Amino acid sequence: MALTGVLRPGHAQIRVLDMAAATKFYGDVLGLVETGRDKQGRVYYKCWDERDHNSLVLRQADQAGLDFFAFKVLDKATLEKFDADLKAYGLKTERIPAGDMLETGERVRFELPSGHLIELYAEKTQVGNGLPNLNPPPWDLKNSERGIAPVRMDHCLMYGPNIDQNKKIFMEVLGFYLVERVFMPKGGPAGEAAIWLSCGHKSHDVAFVVHEQPGKLHHVSFWLNSWEKTLRAGDIMSMNEVPIDIGPTRHGITRGETIYAFDPSGNRFETFAGGYQPYPDWIPTDWEFESLGPGLDYPQRKLHESFLTVLT
Amino acid sequence: MALTGVLRPGHAQIRVLDMAAATKFYGDVLGLVETGRDKQGRVYYKCWDERDHNSLVLRQADQAGLDFFAFKVLDKATLEKFDADLKAYGLKTERIPAGDMLETGERVRFELPSGHLIELYAEKTQVGNGLPNLNPPPWDLKNSERGIAPVRMDHCLMYGPNIDQNKKIFMEVLGFYLVERVFMPKGGPAGEAAIWLSCGHKSHDVAFVVHEQPGKLHHVSFWLNSWEKTLRAGDIMSMNEVPIDIGPTRHGITRGETIYAFDPSGNRFETFAGGYQPYPDWIPTDWEFESLGPGLDYPQRKLHESFLTVLT
Amino acid sequence: MALTGVLRPGHAQIRVLDMAAATKFYGDVLGLVETGRDKQGRVYYKCWDERDHNSLVLRQADQAGLDFFAFKVLDKATLEKFDADLKAYGLKTERIPAGDMLETGERVRFELPSGHLIELYAEKTQVGNGLPNLNPPPWDLKNSERGIAPVRMDHCLMYGPNIDQNKKIFMEVLGFYLVERVFMPKGGPAGEAAIWLSCGHKSHDVAFVVHEQPGKLHHVSFWLNSWEKTLRAGDIMSMNEVPIDIGPTRHGITRGETIYAFDPSGNRFETFAGGYQPYPDWIPTDWEFESLGPGLDYPQRKLHESFLTVLT
Amino acid sequence: MALTGVLRPGHAQIRVLDMAAATKFYGDVLGLVETGRDKQGRVYYKCWDERDHNSLVLRQADQAGLDFFAFKVLDKATLEKFDADLKAYGLKTERIPAGDMLETGERVRFELPSGHLIELYAEKTQVGNGLPNLNPPPWDLKNSERGIAPVRMDHCLMYGPNIDQNKKIFMEVLGFYLVERVFMPKGGPAGEAAIWLSCGHKSHDVAFVVHEQPGKLHHVSFWLNSWEKTLRAGDIMSMNEVPIDIGPTRHGITRGETIYAFDPSGNRFETFAGGYQPYPDWIPTDWEFESLGPGLDYPQRKLHESFLTVLT
Repeated sequence: MALTGVLRPGHAQIRVLDMAAATKFYGDVLGLVETGRDKQGRVYYKCWDERDHNSLVLRQADQAGLDFFAFKVLDKATLEKFDADLKAYGLKTERIPAGDMLETGERVRFELPSGHLIELYAEKTQVGNGLPNLNPPPWDLKNSERGIAPVRMDHCLMYGPNIDQNKKIFMEVLGFYLVERVFMPKGGPAGEAAIWLSCGHKSHDVAFVVHEQPGKLHHVSFWLNSWEKTLRAGDIMSMNEVPIDIGPTRHGITRGETIYAFDPSGNRFETFAGGYQPYPDWIPTDWEFESLGPGLDYPQRKLHESFLTVLT
Repeated sequence: MALTGVLRPGHAQIRVLDMAAATKFYGDVLGLVETGRDKQGRVYYKCWDERDHNSLVLRQADQAGLDFFAFKVLDKATLEKFDADLKAYGLKTERIPAGDMLETGERVRFELPSGHLIELYAEKTQVGNGLPNLNPPPWDLKNSERGIAPVRMDHCLMYGPNIDQNKKIFMEVLGFYLVERVFMPKGGPAGEAAIWLSCGHKSHDVAFVVHEQPGKLHHVSFWLNSWEKTLRAGDIMSMNEVPIDIGPTRHGITRGETIYAFDPSGNRFETFAGGYQPYPDWIPTDWEFESLGPGLDYPQRKLHESFLTVLT
Repeated sequence: MALTGVLRPGHAQIRVLDMAAATKFYGDVLGLVETGRDKQGRVYYKCWDERDHNSLVLRQADQAGLDFFAFKVLDKATLEKFDADLKAYGLKTERIPAGDMLETGERVRFELPSGHLIELYAEKTQVGNGLPNLNPPPWDLKNSERGIAPVRMDHCLMYGPNIDQNKKIFMEVLGFYLVERVFMPKGGPAGEAAIWLSCGHKSHDVAFVVHEQPGKLHHVSFWLNSWEKTLRAGDIMSMNEVPIDIGPTRHGITRGETIYAFDPSGNRFETFAGGYQPYPDWIPTDWEFESLGPGLDYPQRKLHESFLTVLT
Repeated sequence: MALTGVLRPGHAQIRVLDMAAATKFYGDVLGLVETGRDKQGRVYYKCWDERDHNSLVLRQADQAGLDFFAFKVLDKATLEKFDADLKAYGLKTERIPAGDMLETGERVRFELPSGHLIELYAEKTQVGNGLPNLNPPPWDLKNSERGIAPVRMDHCLMYGPNIDQNKKIFMEVLGFYLVERVFMPKGGPAGEAAIWLSCGHKSHDVAFVVHEQPGKLHHVSFWLNSWEKTLRAGDIMSMNEVPIDIGPTRHGITRGETIYAFDPSGNRFETFAGGYQPYPDWIPTDWEFESLGPGLDYPQRKLHESFLTVLT
């Protein structure tokens, strides 16, 4: 099969400080579709055009941040193989039984050298996107425009140490390839300050920025169909006084047409459109740290300080 | 590796009746980048954002149509494996030596039961997209807006008999999966009248419509970044009196925002934006033949007769 | 005052065959805001961003078509002056008392040589656009996206004889100027086959096409903010099986990004975006009748027959 | 006539520090069409879709800023009447003879209480927009996409004292009406801190913000056809390292989809799309000074300090 192994980002579990405020935000403002609540009190969402049961899970906690980020793999055999490969690589893996998360099969969890928990799973109930399977319209008036209404959960950017080791795991064990990278500042130690990795042909499925503190979340990202939808997202954020960090603007890195903003717990999220389509034979695009300004905010060529410092 | 096997559509070789008129059209109006001419007189093009040497090749001939459509595979070992697998499946394959096409490695060619020649290859010189690899802008003023300037050659729709057999080859040997399909008209023999197949996570990398005559070309398609670019394409077509077949409109099938038009030799081409991102775990979208109208032209819900009858 | 005399199109009264079907269409599908119903059973609508009480009025009748089209003038003194000027010009005028239409002041009505009834009025209750007057958002989630949700009723295109006489009245009495025109077919009698007139700096506030039958409606037009909204309009039409006549496409004449479609009674309406901004010192743009194809449907360069023949 | 008196903004004369850098910027980056140079060394530009000879004039000087901003009036009689009316109002007017500016008739100049020079004129040679007058395309490949290529010079925002007196002159003598306004900060003296005025049915043709220093320029603004063109403008600015002040974003005030940036001399300019269409019967939209944040940058709800302090 052409697309095999790791298929795509599957779910992110986010810690929120106040579940009532969080569900109002994720359900009404961001406009995700709530698909369930479990006994632990976690609330499950999917984007309107996603077909799997969930892609974002909220857990109430004392500190905001990311519990784990997961990828869907092709099938159970692939899951078993990755578990074996990860162990062979020297990583400890953990099995989370099917049913721990609603409508989600067994998960293989491991910790990255950057301190983030990554999960792989093969099974999540397909609940559909709300459109009929026979002769469907391209979108519907019920869910496609309720709040910001992103199309899909797209990727996650995490901050932590040892991202060179993360990169090796994603590339050598999980079959990702490097799409873009930012080198460390000139005059200091060589290496990569940031990396964008893809398992398919999106500009990125996961990304890392080097940071002293382990396990930090920069943002979970949601995809929109157009730059006009990005402005619409910004308008809706303002109507609801959602604090925007950066944008609307274009990233130089990945070319995304983006807004970074914060959920009520301070977790940054992104709504974006655009990008391009790389493939595994891609020669990575390089950025000097000194050009991170245009890389982050291409029109303004500005390295907004919060990009490097505000994390959960 | 997550994305392996067949990576993507690689090149289409098109027969044109008048090379001077064709190069004026493909070079100046469609705005492809000419990358070479060979001793046979063939002219090579790439889209501005493609990095490989060529994706469209023109050959002068007495009859318009498609010589062959090719896919790039991951590497030479993959190419060898596909050759063996195709033979094991019962298909005859042919080796076209490296250098037969400019900057292109050895190709494995086989004929589909629909009468189309398909090629696989592992190597094509990467010439880049004209942007620097270090700190690049997202596009440039030189090539990104010269003529219609599509981003990439995206897919091909072919008409011929035995598309059920084509489907088996693409799915069972080449690792594609079925994204959408149109069933045969009610009251007649069952089966699929049309199929859209993907090897990655695009809405389609290749598609077939059942037709009596073998080896027919419906269109080669080129991707644009937005619906606004689709209108711009339509305006430029009109400025150059390029005959439009259908559009601008939205396809119900694949959701593409599209124009079908004809090159000076009568070969149909498409410029389109939009779509969605399926994955191999996709449950195919079904269309009744009786709903091919909205499937083709969603706003007008109209089955334009030329869609089924005008071919090269 | 810089903008004086006739300010803008104010209201159109349309005859519909089935009020229940009509209100479902205009209220739910086109997404106008219903503002009232009167004792005669007429139903009143405004577009979401309009501030006056109504811009479209539906009246049930046995035959579809346009009862009258009206313009708002600056004030009552202007209304009196226009009444006197119209009479001095030789036209018979009629006074419709305030209150005949809901929330609308006295109207001066006259019949054009083309057989259409035109009205002028100075007063219509300002009900606002639903946004607060203090620190407003640019749009709201309640009305701006309910159905197609056009921004304003923009203009009307009428078919009838003697449009040269109409033109004199609009230009010499009412202060409009000519923006674009189509000449009569070559080889026949000279003159104008179609005219587009503006009283402000829109591409057109009213337009006429010469036609044997008097008093015919071609379409009432509604404005959208973008070409993307035009596609959205087309999608919503299809979801509701609204029959589209032409589009989405671009007009060559006026540059509008347009869809023509029909209400359930067969009255054509337009939803469009774009255009340009002429002023009274404008040199009219000329079109040969033989170029009406690109004038109507610029990408396809096609004179759709229905444009000249399907009227109510 | 419906639109009479003051028709529209006509030309702005801007002081630049280095003419070579300025012409490179205005000609190549902003993409205006150079239409002439006069004996004084002034360089004249028009936007591609404007039909009059010039709308922006550059003059080399030791200090950046605005020499004068002009409006085109309907005809010479109107010009004479305004001259008389301005004098009757108590303002001193000056006649600048025809030919002082290239292809421009006699101008009536007066100084506003805010210290700005305003001009009125009735005649400027119509050179056309480069498209044929007969059967024109909607745009062309030569000028419509060369650099940022705005459609028209749209308005000017000036800073200075006594804007309440400016408002009276524009409304009582020149026939403008008030579209939006910002009140002075609470707790201080009452009044208006900023006003947006229109002579037609654009969101604004001229605007003023109260400021201690007289005669200051905030920005001259250029109109684009879409939000996508606004992003394109931002990309081109970055490619040319044009410093952006604010945006891309949406103004709450006027709803414009905007970028503020600086020319090489430090003069701010705007490229924007969108807005809405008010008329003289408009009830002005009010903004509290405390809501100037969303008024300026609606998504971010941020009062960028430079908006109030960086002027030329």
